[in-house]
Amino acid sequence: MSPDGSHSDALALALNATASRMEQVMAGLLPDGDGPETRLFDAMRYSALDGGKRLRPFLVMQGAGLFDVEAAQAERAAAAIEFVHCYSLVHDDLPAMDDDDLRRGKPTCHVAFDEATAILAGDALQTLAFEVLAAPATHPDAEVRCALVGALASAAGGEGMVGGQMFDLQAESEGTGYGLDQITRLQALKTGRLFAFSCQAGAILGQADAPSRAALDAYARDLGLAFQIADDILDATGTEAEVGKKVGKDADAGKATFISLLGLDGARERALALAAQAAEHLDLFGHKADLLKDVARFVVNRRA
Amino acid sequence: MSPDGSHSDALALALNATASRMEQVMAGLLPDGDGPETRLFDAMRYSALDGGKRLRPFLVMQGAGLFDVEAAQAERAAAAIEFVHCYSLVHDDLPAMDDDDLRRGKPTCHVAFDEATAILAGDALQTLAFEVLAAPATHPDAEVRCALVGALASAAGGEGMVGGQMFDLQAESEGTGYGLDQITRLQALKTGRLFAFSCQAGAILGQADAPSRAALDAYARDLGLAFQIADDILDATGTEAEVGKKVGKDADAGKATFISLLGLDGARERALALAAQAAEHLDLFGHKADLLKDVARFVVNRRA
Repeated sequence: MSPDGSHSDALALALNATASRMEQVMAGLLPDGDGPETRLFDAMRYSALDGGKRLRPFLVMQGAGLFDVEAAQAERAAAAIEFVHCYSLVHDDLPAMDDDDLRRGKPTCHVAFDEATAILAGDALQTLAFEVLAAPATHPDAEVRCALVGALASAAGGEGMVGGQMFDLQAESEGTGYGLDQITRLQALKTGRLFAFSCQAGAILGQADAPSRAALDAYARDLGLAFQIADDILDATGTEAEVGKKVGKDADAGKATFISLLGLDGARERALALAAQAAEHLDLFGHKADLLKDVARFVVNRRA
Repeated sequence: MSPDGSHSDALALALNATASRMEQVMAGLLPDGDGPETRLFDAMRYSALDGGKRLRPFLVMQGAGLFDVEAAQAERAAAAIEFVHCYSLVHDDLPAMDDDDLRRGKPTCHVAFDEATAILAGDALQTLAFEVLAAPATHPDAEVRCALVGALASAAGGEGMVGGQMFDLQAESEGTGYGLDQITRLQALKTGRLFAFSCQAGAILGQADAPSRAALDAYARDLGLAFQIADDILDATGTEAEVGKKVGKDADAGKATFISLLGLDGARERALALAAQAAEHLDLFGHKADLLKDVARFVVNRRA
């Protein structure tokens, strides 16, 4: 990054451009209709559209750019990952889970609709992700499409993201009993696996070589952890208006977090070190990876 | 079917054999482990194993038999469909949905565990279905695996099963306002699409010709509707001990059903006629389809 921060401006522009393009792509993939089931489609669109930084799609698009993947293919993979991310938020926010009323500055799905509709909307958003990946428009080679389906399922399922959610719920009921190793493993499952898939999707689409994939894996691991530490920092120091969701929840729940384990300053230092290390893993891609390097710094400095 | 009912005995034996084989296959595919997320795996196993007639897997296995598909491949597709079916039951039973305490004669997942765990177990069962289908062990040709993923997603998603669930919830809030056309469409979405995919999976794996696929589609359409009418009859006439779940719910909810629209005798006649018609669609397969023909008669005469 140049000392005058011009890459940060480039990053902001690129993030906005991807977010606005993803809005169109996702809107085109979401179901629409006028039967009695339209309420479901409305809830899916409400939960998936008009919100979020679209950080995972951005990682997909930038990763795909390293291997000259066609944008139309990468956008479908990016949409699939974002549908999975959105479904997980809808279910996480349910009263039986985190019981959150606010998400991305809007009422959560079960508040705007109702619990049953929110459960179904989350379910159908997950299904849609796999439908999108398996369709020929995502890549002409079915082996590539199957690799995407398998990798997303592995990242999102019981031994990935959903396992991490369960781990997190158990952490709540067990209070502050977890140490740094366990919290790191928890976050690697809960958010890390989907970040890792976001960083790999472009390499899968581009049928990239093993060293490239390993570099992206290492980047994703550090990025995901830095992201989560930053999330803990926001939860501890941000306001609801800034962050767009309820804050202070971890302390209220007496949960072990990176803050409770490292202290606020220690957590900030760790996140910055991870961001720098994440960027270094991408040196082999040269300037093509500049925006991915900037993203690592962005996630630890963000205010929402 | 021979007049002495020997095919029915053969059917009972074959259903039992498939159910017991599927138990092994599904147990081998479900995650296991000893981390804090083990509670999730326990809930997934609780919800997917040791229960049900495994009717959808049976349809897959019999359909695959028509095209000489390897059993190990068909069993994976059968397990995937059953995982989706089980996930839908876990979510349907939730307090915010049908609020059922009993399923297959056992406490429902959210009763045996808790609501949050049941939501996550359903989520991860769905993911597992797609992971299983996309893996090379399901078929050497990735085009076939992608066709399975795409067809299951289409059948199970917002424009299929989940859309049908939403339709059904709307039907409850709108009481008896629906006519026969609407109830038929509701059931085609809610249960018919997954039945149809169960009947098609073998043809996809066997890369069957268009007339074979069309015959199986026609069979599935009639079978699914016959099954649902029989379900309404069981709900109206069965006991909780026989059926293994709460009965009399439709009448209590004041919902339009095939019984309220056709009367009990009319519904029985319609189901029998559909079963006979379903069997006729399979004539082109000769004796290889005998058990599938018997299944059509079985679903309308079952007591649970």
